[in-house]
Amino acid sequence: MKNVFGNNLTLTLFGESHGPAVGAVIDGLPAGIRVPEEAVSAVMNRRKAYGRISTSRHEEDKVEFLSGIKDGFTQGTPVTILIRNENAERKDYTENIIRPSHADYTGLEKYRGYADLSGGGHFSGRLTAPLTAAGAVCLGMLEKKGITIGTHILQIRTIHDERFHETDPADQLNALRGKQFPVLSDQAADLMKHAIAEAADEGDSLGGILETAVCGLEAGIGEPWFDTAEGMIAHAVFSVPAVKGISFGAGFDLAQMKGSEANDAFTAENGKIKTMTNHSGGIAGGITNGMPVLFRTVIKPTPSIAKEQRSVDPETLEEKIIAVKGRHDPAIVHRACPVIDAVAALVITDLCIERYGALWFTEKDKR
Amino acid sequence: MKNVFGNNLTLTLFGESHGPAVGAVIDGLPAGIRVPEEAVSAVMNRRKAYGRISTSRHEEDKVEFLSGIKDGFTQGTPVTILIRNENAERKDYTENIIRPSHADYTGLEKYRGYADLSGGGHFSGRLTAPLTAAGAVCLGMLEKKGITIGTHILQIRTIHDERFHETDPADQLNALRGKQFPVLSDQAADLMKHAIAEAADEGDSLGGILETAVCGLEAGIGEPWFDTAEGMIAHAVFSVPAVKGISFGAGFDLAQMKGSEANDAFTAENGKIKTMTNHSGGIAGGITNGMPVLFRTVIKPTPSIAKEQRSVDPETLEEKIIAVKGRHDPAIVHRACPVIDAVAALVITDLCIERYGALWFTEKDKR
Amino acid sequence: MKNVFGNNLTLTLFGESHGPAVGAVIDGLPAGIRVPEEAVSAVMNRRKAYGRISTSRHEEDKVEFLSGIKDGFTQGTPVTILIRNENAERKDYTENIIRPSHADYTGLEKYRGYADLSGGGHFSGRLTAPLTAAGAVCLGMLEKKGITIGTHILQIRTIHDERFHETDPADQLNALRGKQFPVLSDQAADLMKHAIAEAADEGDSLGGILETAVCGLEAGIGEPWFDTAEGMIAHAVFSVPAVKGISFGAGFDLAQMKGSEANDAFTAENGKIKTMTNHSGGIAGGITNGMPVLFRTVIKPTPSIAKEQRSVDPETLEEKIIAVKGRHDPAIVHRACPVIDAVAALVITDLCIERYGALWFTEKDKR
Amino acid sequence: MKNVFGNNLTLTLFGESHGPAVGAVIDGLPAGIRVPEEAVSAVMNRRKAYGRISTSRHEEDKVEFLSGIKDGFTQGTPVTILIRNENAERKDYTENIIRPSHADYTGLEKYRGYADLSGGGHFSGRLTAPLTAAGAVCLGMLEKKGITIGTHILQIRTIHDERFHETDPADQLNALRGKQFPVLSDQAADLMKHAIAEAADEGDSLGGILETAVCGLEAGIGEPWFDTAEGMIAHAVFSVPAVKGISFGAGFDLAQMKGSEANDAFTAENGKIKTMTNHSGGIAGGITNGMPVLFRTVIKPTPSIAKEQRSVDPETLEEKIIAVKGRHDPAIVHRACPVIDAVAALVITDLCIERYGALWFTEKDKR
Repeated sequence: MKNVFGNNLTLTLFGESHGPAVGAVIDGLPAGIRVPEEAVSAVMNRRKAYGRISTSRHEEDKVEFLSGIKDGFTQGTPVTILIRNENAERKDYTENIIRPSHADYTGLEKYRGYADLSGGGHFSGRLTAPLTAAGAVCLGMLEKKGITIGTHILQIRTIHDERFHETDPADQLNALRGKQFPVLSDQAADLMKHAIAEAADEGDSLGGILETAVCGLEAGIGEPWFDTAEGMIAHAVFSVPAVKGISFGAGFDLAQMKGSEANDAFTAENGKIKTMTNHSGGIAGGITNGMPVLFRTVIKPTPSIAKEQRSVDPETLEEKIIAVKGRHDPAIVHRACPVIDAVAALVITDLCIERYGALWFTEKDKR
Repeated sequence: MKNVFGNNLTLTLFGESHGPAVGAVIDGLPAGIRVPEEAVSAVMNRRKAYGRISTSRHEEDKVEFLSGIKDGFTQGTPVTILIRNENAERKDYTENIIRPSHADYTGLEKYRGYADLSGGGHFSGRLTAPLTAAGAVCLGMLEKKGITIGTHILQIRTIHDERFHETDPADQLNALRGKQFPVLSDQAADLMKHAIAEAADEGDSLGGILETAVCGLEAGIGEPWFDTAEGMIAHAVFSVPAVKGISFGAGFDLAQMKGSEANDAFTAENGKIKTMTNHSGGIAGGITNGMPVLFRTVIKPTPSIAKEQRSVDPETLEEKIIAVKGRHDPAIVHRACPVIDAVAALVITDLCIERYGALWFTEKDKR
Repeated sequence: MKNVFGNNLTLTLFGESHGPAVGAVIDGLPAGIRVPEEAVSAVMNRRKAYGRISTSRHEEDKVEFLSGIKDGFTQGTPVTILIRNENAERKDYTENIIRPSHADYTGLEKYRGYADLSGGGHFSGRLTAPLTAAGAVCLGMLEKKGITIGTHILQIRTIHDERFHETDPADQLNALRGKQFPVLSDQAADLMKHAIAEAADEGDSLGGILETAVCGLEAGIGEPWFDTAEGMIAHAVFSVPAVKGISFGAGFDLAQMKGSEANDAFTAENGKIKTMTNHSGGIAGGITNGMPVLFRTVIKPTPSIAKEQRSVDPETLEEKIIAVKGRHDPAIVHRACPVIDAVAALVITDLCIERYGALWFTEKDKR
Repeated sequence: MKNVFGNNLTLTLFGESHGPAVGAVIDGLPAGIRVPEEAVSAVMNRRKAYGRISTSRHEEDKVEFLSGIKDGFTQGTPVTILIRNENAERKDYTENIIRPSHADYTGLEKYRGYADLSGGGHFSGRLTAPLTAAGAVCLGMLEKKGITIGTHILQIRTIHDERFHETDPADQLNALRGKQFPVLSDQAADLMKHAIAEAADEGDSLGGILETAVCGLEAGIGEPWFDTAEGMIAHAVFSVPAVKGISFGAGFDLAQMKGSEANDAFTAENGKIKTMTNHSGGIAGGITNGMPVLFRTVIKPTPSIAKEQRSVDPETLEEKIIAVKGRHDPAIVHRACPVIDAVAALVITDLCIERYGALWFTEKDKR
């Protein structure tokens, strides 16, 4: 498959930045799931551009449910999410020069010249709007089953937020709720915002590292080969534009540890098996162990910068100097957090349906 | 799906460590691909345990092709690889205590007590033998089309190998061929081996970071959403036991860079578009850009260590002290390199079939 | 998967009869395919209700392409088809009694009471509008490669049309083009229309048998197991509402034949291998043999009839007498023909991409 | 996918008739399913050649479980079935002439000359041995949940068996158990055997129509589009070699009926909704309605006949006369019955996992 993801849930994204609309179809959602409009809006709002640390292209991103939902409940039929493009200023993007580290060149090769890549076309970050709306539906489903997901900015340049407590980040997840700039430490948040604003002033941009926690998953979810919990999450997370790496638990630090340091010793607590540390990020052998699933993703600096860069004209191969105009985000790390939450929610829902069946999520029949 | 991977190629792994055999079935290989026995053996040999830095369980790992291959060529029908288990010493693994950071506990939960987990069962690293053999077939196919893949140990603890040249690692890939301990710098190799031997002496273990390069891929391979080149590779690579992270190009270092530093400027060379740096790891917007695909994976220290660790009895929940007996690897980083090569080859072959069709690989009809 | 079909092409249908819209997303279409609006309209028109032998619910069925098409060419990105529901008269369908041989009861059980089944909901024949539009795109692609598809009504009650010539129905396919009531013999057509009108007058309905031919396919397409050409076509064709059977070549008549009568002897014609008869319907061992693919489908009489029928109230289980009101088709056999063409085109396109790669269909790069 | 089937269960068939073995891998079976050896053997025995109405190639068809089963229970890991080829007499099949209505020619084209097609190669009916063994596992699982499946020969030439009672064939399914020649009426059975023996004497062969019933399925299983219950069953059933058609319920007879005759009126019985007739074959809108699922398949006469037939040499295109030597079945209708049962069981199991989750089948944890 291609622009389609999932085994039990199937999500297809569609649309181009400067076409009439972007959207998503999710098939496989069980019937009878409540989808409160305000819950979807809350997640969508966290993805919105805001202040001077974001693009000035402000879209309403009004989510229309074209199918699959009635009277606030899923019908069990495919759910179609539509978000119209209203504020496209195509003139901003008319140059025929491929922008460094953008998908301009790869899109040109992939689609052999036929794709409308203005504003990023089908590659545009705007596609994360329906993706986030779809994830919001899953976030609600999971919460009803005691599974919560949250993401914060762990690092921008040399500024670090406090880390999630590896064995119990539940309180920290609560503290993140509703934060438009999802950082645990207010002081770190201020420094990060300042750094982004500074980069914006220079016509430059920044990336960062995000940390995500999934709490409340039982042991036994995932597979030993191929559809490992790590592999499924990673597969989906690399769809979030600008993600260039993912690691679980202690991640790349494991290269410096010995087995005796890295292993998570077992203990029993209130009749339940737990680990005393969580360097494994809640997953062993591809399968959840009942501890929080913890992973980090690295987001590259947004490639659209006002500074001059070297490029070429893809037709003549002449070398050109380019300075990307238009409205751009000097950083998307904060806006990426709800998108990562959404993507994680889709994968976790898929894995839960695999393990427990779709009916696990339905509270009661309407008949 | 579960223990099955791929869109155009479909690989299923089967078998348990202490069952009669482990194996794989690959469906979707085009007819008429030459599969030289010695080429498969060469890759398999690189995966073998050797010296005092590996387990003393030496398996012959004799690959039988039960179907799909005739007279050294693929028939186009499913290829079945069988490797019999001959040297299983089940007594080594009889304790009923779950080993920290192993799949003992997660396997118990996943399979509800029914899986034979002795020696790791279906989770065993032995399953990477048929996986590697399957990948060896693909490595041969790709090489005929000018696509080469290689992996070296970049780091163990604080010992670093030299890095791949980001824009042209072809010579380095050549230098790695046939190395049983795949490290570019001989000095680094000695230090790494020494560190592993030392950990072995302490009853401890080590992990490390591997770096992989794929050369010769054209621009245009992958998808913008979900089946991104990064997502497909990551999905598969997390199946390699002990992998806990993956990053592309500059990876987690991107968090510290500005856009003006991270972006890969374009240039033209001999009528072809290239980038001057390769912080993107050969992929933009999920699609290859014609530069080498570069990624790093982190391998955790092997969890089986002789040192005493805290654990519990999963039935009584009593706390226990465990020291893992049996024959184990103090490190698997070197043995993991050909496995990563194999997995990458499977994914790249899948993506090439997607792009070019299966017939692209067949040289000529036999009729 | 569920409401998603295809390996290389992925089609998802969405929408409810009385919701805001019905539609489809097709992923996997190669870039650079011309999609002439008038060609899509021509196929859509053949599906339209007309005259007194169809429902009086006349929808415009205006096809909007929300994504994936630009300047009349596919972009290579997912194509979204949207058809708004404008003429829904929900009041016609308000009774809470399950209609015999409709999906009312099975939909109630499947979706546990949460699906809006008015007007058939997601089961509605209206969903075949976007399905047909999607197929129309494929019909155009295939025609460019010399592959043509056509369906006629072979039988209604005891009235028979002439059969396709089993080894060369090309002229007959031409004769069918543009016929709103696709029957080869004008005399049979008149008798059939008369029979339908008569049934309508009685408040009753009719079904029939359709015959489809696919010309121009080369030998070698399909698989020996599971994804046989027959299995793939059948899987998709059973999605067309009211289809209850499918057979290839001589079909159920093979039960009465001996091997010496049923076997298709080979001959050579202009340097090409052909069969002298085509009882196999162009497929042997699941794989096309280069002869026309011929299959028949049986369509049950439309279940909505004005005559009184016995039913029950699904809540109280009380027995009830029901007479289905509202606007209904006394027969859909003629309207089903372009839908079968569309579905066949989707499957054949999928199989051709599998065999030849997606680029086979693209005429030239735009770059 | 190709030689792989299923959404929740994934079955891959492998092997060639004259290779070392044929086999299957099933992934997705829940852990803790009892697999009694004698139950598997019983189903396998029904598929065996016997008497003078079958081939004289008698294989032991000894089923080895190479993985996934331990102490008579599924482990939850992939189950590998291996059946060695012991009685291959390759010399019988050495002629280089393509046999009419066999897969010789299509296999040659598909695999471009590289496949070993002797004895049918990967197309051989021998592959139905592991397919049947895999289905036998599912038949056992389903029976524990009250779901039974049975198939009888409904028709050979003009000889008819009695039909299944459309609303309750349970007693008839019981009567079929253990019958080597599965026909309900003993008189019809004798006539059928006689007809087959007569065809054998003439060097000819026969086909027939099979009728299958699935009892005990609840309403609500299947999907409205694409993965309809009919489409899923049909997709799989066309993998059974020689099947050329399938119909559900009244099938092709529906073409002659009016809606008022075809519709299945509802009634209530013991607090459960039932239909008074079952022309729908237990499926409406693609979804089961709780009545028995009834379908018929047509099996073409076995193409290997001793009588002379016209063919060509595929290399020179010279016309040739061929008389197929070797050991062949004059009819496979009786041997096909357990294969259809097996295939139906695989699909029904897949659909049940979809609806109820895999854990539905597991009786209890072993922990």
